[in-house]
This record gives sequence, C-alpha cells and structure tokens, in this order.
Amino acid sequence: MKYLFGIDIGGTNIKFGLLNIDGKILLNESIKTNSEAGYDDCFSRIAEEIEKMRVEKNIDKSDILGVGMGIPGPVLHQEIVSFFANFPWEGNLNVARILGEKTGYRVKVDNDVNVITLGEVWQGSAVGYSDVIGMALGTGIGGGIVADGKLVGGAKGAGGEIGHMTIVPNGKLCGCGKKGCFEAYVSATGIEREAESRLAVNKNNKLWDIISKKEGQKVEAKDVFDAAKSGDEFSLDIVDYTTEYIAHGLSILLHVTNPEVVVIGGGVALAGDILFDGIAAKIKKYSLPVCMDGLQILPAKLGNEAGIVGAAALLLN
Amino acid sequence: MKYLFGIDIGGTNIKFGLLNIDGKILLNESIKTNSEAGYDDCFSRIAEEIEKMRVEKNIDKSDILGVGMGIPGPVLHQEIVSFFANFPWEGNLNVARILGEKTGYRVKVDNDVNVITLGEVWQGSAVGYSDVIGMALGTGIGGGIVADGKLVGGAKGAGGEIGHMTIVPNGKLCGCGKKGCFEAYVSATGIEREAESRLAVNKNNKLWDIISKKEGQKVEAKDVFDAAKSGDEFSLDIVDYTTEYIAHGLSILLHVTNPEVVVIGGGVALAGDILFDGIAAKIKKYSLPVCMDGLQILPAKLGNEAGIVGAAALLLN
Repeated sequence: MKYLFGIDIGGTNIKFGLLNIDGKILLNESIKTNSEAGYDDCFSRIAEEIEKMRVEKNIDKSDILGVGMGIPGPVLHQEIVSFFANFPWEGNLNVARILGEKTGYRVKVDNDVNVITLGEVWQGSAVGYSDVIGMALGTGIGGGIVADGKLVGGAKGAGGEIGHMTIVPNGKLCGCGKKGCFEAYVSATGIEREAESRLAVNKNNKLWDIISKKEGQKVEAKDVFDAAKSGDEFSLDIVDYTTEYIAHGLSILLHVTNPEVVVIGGGVALAGDILFDGIAAKIKKYSLPVCMDGLQILPAKLGNEAGIVGAAALLLN
Repeated sequence: MKYLFGIDIGGTNIKFGLLNIDGKILLNESIKTNSEAGYDDCFSRIAEEIEKMRVEKNIDKSDILGVGMGIPGPVLHQEIVSFFANFPWEGNLNVARILGEKTGYRVKVDNDVNVITLGEVWQGSAVGYSDVIGMALGTGIGGGIVADGKLVGGAKGAGGEIGHMTIVPNGKLCGCGKKGCFEAYVSATGIEREAESRLAVNKNNKLWDIISKKEGQKVEAKDVFDAAKSGDEFSLDIVDYTTEYIAHGLSILLHVTNPEVVVIGGGVALAGDILFDGIAAKIKKYSLPVCMDGLQILPAKLGNEAGIVGAAALLLN
C-alpha cells in the first residue's frame, strides 16, 4: 500500500492528514501555524510533524508518495506561492522546494480552494467527473476550476480567482479595492453587509429580533438564513437577492469552461436547500441550454477534511 | 516531412489547406458548402478534394498525419458536433468518424473559434504561450480557451461560449433568447444596434452623414469606428461604450483562467488601435493586479487563414 500526506495550512492552524492511496484518512493531526516565527521555522515544524506521523503508523519512507499542501493565495506551477494571503511572509517563495528539502519527499502545493475542489473530485461530490467547478462561499469566495481532469492554474496561479470577477460595474466596494466583485455580493461578508445596510432602515423584522439579542448586535450570514427559514420576509428577500447574484456569477462560469458539476462549499453553503433551490431556480435564465444540459449543482461533501484530502489528491493529479 | 490538412467549414464555403508540419501552407483550395444536399454528400466532396490536393502535391498517404476541421457550434471530444449552428443537419453527428471513414485519415473536429485560437498559438500572436484566450468579435462573439496548452472543451463542447455570458442582467435582448449577453453588446451586431438606437434620436453627427449616403442606410460597425477615427464625438462615445463592455467581459475571463495572452480577432478587431487602446485603458479597474501581471492583449495575426491553420493544429494539440 502507498501513502500520501495532505496538509491544509491556514492563518491559525496547520492540519495534517496521513492517507492511503484509496483516500482513507489513517491519522489526523493539527499544530499552530505561528507564522510570525517565519516560514523556515514553520516548514521545519511541518517536516517534524510529518515524520512523527509516519513513525506512529510505522510506514516505510519508500511507501510515502509525497506531500500535498493547500495554501491561501495564488500558486505558480504547484510550487511557488506568488503572495501569502494570510501570513507575514514574502511572496514568490518556492514552498514545494523548501518543504521538499526539509522532508525528503516530493511536494506539490496549490491554492486552498483549488485543492478542496480536487478533493471533491477524488473523494467527494464530484467523483467520476472531469469538468468541475468548485466554489467556496466563506468570508470571501474562492474557486477551483477542473477542466478535463486537470486544475486550471493560469499564468500566475490566479486561475479560479472567481471571487473578484466584476459582476456589477461600479458596484459595492470589495476588500480588494475594486468595485462590484462577485464576493462583495455573495460571500458571508457580502451577505452580512447587505443585511446590516437594510437593517439600518428597517428593524421591524425577525432578523433584527435575533440580532438585537446578541452581544455586539453583529449580523452573521447564518442569522439571515435562519430568519429566512422561519419565514421572515425581510430575510427571505436578502436570500433572494443573494441567490440571484450567485446564479448570475455561476452562469458566467458555465459559459467559460462548461462544467458538468458545480460543487459549492464553505460556511454559506451550510444554509442548504434554501440556497441551492434558489440558485437552481434562477440560473436557467442566465444560461444557454447547452450549458445547463446535465449540469449538477451540489453541496460539497468533505467538510473540514476537504483541505487535507484535496492536498493529498494533488499528488495524483 | 509530414503533412496536415486543415479545413474550415462555413455556411457558404469550405476552405482547405494542405500544410507541412512546420505550419507552412503548401496549397489552398475552396469549394461551396452546399449543405442542403446533406452531410453525406458534403463530406464525400471534402474527401474528394483532400485526395485531389494530396495527388497534386504528390504526397504519400503515409506522410499525412490527419485532417483537422473547424466548424461553428459546440463539439464534443473533438469528434461529435452537438448541433450545427449554420447547417440544416441533425445534431449529435460524429463528424470525426464519418470523415475518417471517407478519407482513411485520423480526423479531429472542434469549434471554429477554438480552432482559430489554437492556430494563433501555433503560428500567430500567441506562439510560445500556454494560457491563452482567443476572442472572435464578428457578427457574434466566439471564444477559445487554452489552459496549460490544451483547449478547454467542457462537458458538452460549450467551453469558450463567452458570447453568452450575461454581463448585464436583464440587459439587451440577444439572438439566443437570453438578455444581457456579452455579444449583445460588443459584437458587430451589438455595435450596430447601439448605433442605430442612438441615431434614432440624434442625426446631427458624422456617422449619420456617412450612413445617410449609403443605400439602405444600414449602419455597419466599421462605419462607427471610421467616424470615430475622424473625430466624431457621437461615434467616439459609442466606441467608448463598446470598449467598456469588452474590458468588463474580458476582465471576467482573466479571473477564471488567468491567461498570459488574449488574442482578439474577427471583423471588429480590424478597427485597430482605437479598440485595443480603449480596452487596455479600461480593463485595469476591473482586474486584480495578479491577473494583469504580464498580460498581453493582442490582435490576431492569421486573418483569413486562421481557420485552416488552426484546424491543422488540432492534430498536434
């Protein structure tokens, strides 16, 4: 049997998985990222953790196929991180080479949402499909494009940066500095901004009943979906507004790479049917019939393990 | 030396090229499509023409690597035409198999704009690049997406159907029946509709001076660019409006597949600098810096021969 390591590195934690070639997770670990100590320190600790896990499972070094890693930010040729979205490290760092030297294994690195998408193709909602789009609806929006079974990385590793497609020219200001980006409308942050903006002029609704009881009175996207599910018209209209933009943005992608499956994950996707039914009802009017033919729009399956499973999948892609 | 046939089949004419493996066209021919006689008749005449050309150049059959063909409409797996955009033939036809049987050669078929894009990568403006988007701005808009050197066909052959991305929800009616499609705004037809709509309320401009002298008084996109180049403010504003939408639509694509080169061809692209300068000036505000990094937006180079050169290139892709 051959084995793979999958690593999901985030701003706070680094998650590790030791998987067999069939995609079964044999061992899960997590350490603090502690990125302020520098990348060299961080990658040394990653190498130590990997070695510890290998010894714990008594696996021969020659049976380890390699180490895959998902990281936020654009990644070039599955090696070089152009810039680090969440770490105080200088960009253009050849993470694959550095970690390869420290571990002695083959290392492949890719953008975190690319990696998650690959995980869904290997072990999740998109098993058996070769034209897939993954979309993570979280604080921001990330995308992963799989065309004919391969990740679309692009010239500078920015393939799948769908959160920053302009869908409303001169629209809402986005955290990136541009206006009208997809993620300014339909990420958790986007939904919360819209809800807060509406609550400023209308507090006569169930959403405000929920929010006003919370410390800090801060809206979370989940509150909006919860209130909508309980029948609050005010919140239902925000969900309608959100699913309209998701449908519009997704439909654009259908005409670029013509996927057979779209997998939606991230915190916002946990809203479930109210979200997916809305998208399904609205996307047709934006899309050519040939692009809708056989199309499935599915929730992600792998949840918290998507990052490590997908990272391991890099070695097989 | 090995040789390739490239075929560009359109509603009126079928163009043939016999090329050597270096991309040099040794012989050019053209016959009428005459599609009403049925596909079997048409493909038989294609096979005859190919044989005639081979004999004329005295090339051994074993030195022919195959036949590539570009055709309007979505094509599945470079074999099956899902539906014929310009011919009265039933869809889901395995053109590669039929023409393969009639000629005895390996045959690959793809969408005409995919093929043109591949031609530009092989012999035109995008030589040496592996992440490329081709856009044909003609009567409609077609796109070809090359990612890591390979054409993105998609699940149903609709990869690159960028003319039908919705860029203005509930916008101008498109020929496809949807509203707000990219091509409703920036194709030659789109430009002409916009100009005619504006001329209906304002005839005090150079564009009207040109149009009013023409028989039928029908606007052509070229008239708009010509009047703009001569300084007509009315026409300059239409060009501004058009390049704004082209920049917006193209910028979306930059965030999906992150190309290093965008090649723009088709009749509208002949407008030259006034078009390309406008796009270059406007696209930045819609695009992340990482997507603009090193990006080139170039006019297509191959012109009328793009179809046959690109079709031949299919056999090398």
